Amino acid sequence: MVICGIDPGLAIVGYGFVELVGNKYRVLDYGAILTDSKMKLPNRLEKIYRDLNQLIEKYNPEDIAFEELFFNKNVKTAINVSHARGVEVLCAKINNKEIFEYTPLQIKQAVVGYGRAEKRQVQEMVKIILNLNDIPKPDDVADALAVAITHGSSIKFKDNFRMK
Amino acid sequence: MVICGIDPGLAIVGYGFVELVGNKYRVLDYGAILTDSKMKLPNRLEKIYRDLNQLIEKYNPEDIAFEELFFNKNVKTAINVSHARGVEVLCAKINNKEIFEYTPLQIKQAVVGYGRAEKRQVQEMVKIILNLNDIPKPDDVADALAVAITHGSSIKFKDNFRMK
Repeated sequence: MVICGIDPGLAIVGYGFVELVGNKYRVLDYGAILTDSKMKLPNRLEKIYRDLNQLIEKYNPEDIAFEELFFNKNVKTAINVSHARGVEVLCAKINNKEIFEYTPLQIKQAVVGYGRAEKRQVQEMVKIILNLNDIPKPDDVADALAVAITHGSSIKFKDNFRMK
Repeated sequence: MVICGIDPGLAIVGYGFVELVGNKYRVLDYGAILTDSKMKLPNRLEKIYRDLNQLIEKYNPEDIAFEELFFNKNVKTAINVSHARGVEVLCAKINNKEIFEYTPLQIKQAVVGYGRAEKRQVQEMVKIILNLNDIPKPDDVADALAVAITHGSSIKFKDNFRMK
């Protein structure tokens, strides 16, 4: 089955498409949708929607897993990123995909086996598990692949992680 | 010209469509898109997108004006409402509409002539300006009509209020 992992964002939307075969992963594609902060919000949202739509149509994943938003920072940033995440979730839903979400803690737990792992440890494990030559850049791409791996490793219990 | 005003939200999306003829308004439609909090987020976003899309196609406004989000409350609420607002802005953009936004202060100023007006005063003025028999309910609907009126009264300077 094909899984799409998404690290939601407005300036950078990380994505990763992996195929889970048994308990091994085959990497199909990964990267980031970028929108310039000089663009107006409606244009940024439209670009994200159209680009993500194209990727979902191309790789036709069964499940799409999002990282849950967590903000201790400023509300302004939370509002901007949430505008984009809403569009990303809509895109998944309009394409009739099953939608899941995982907290940063759950992702670290699944990928490194330790909920308080450092960002760098998560990235190294992504590289190893997916048999990549390098850690994907920017961080958002590695994070998106980490979400996809988390969903893959939770696949038998996935009903617990449906987006509410 | 037809103007659509939107009071963005997740549980309640207020909308109002008015036609500006000279400096008078003709009310075309107003109401609210409602989504139950028991529904899952992806389903709520899809309902908002599809319902709003239908309304925009029906009344074909030239301009769509949104109330700007302002949050001093909790980040969790800001995140939820912003998911929905992102979808609402996307819907306007995909329909090739011009998109504007106004702060609560600008709306009060335009509708009542006083930036610190009470909610009730705004609602009374909406009723009077649009020649309605009653104040539209819930509040979100009156707020959406207030945004539409604000845009109408700013029409000569509207470039200043394009969504950034």
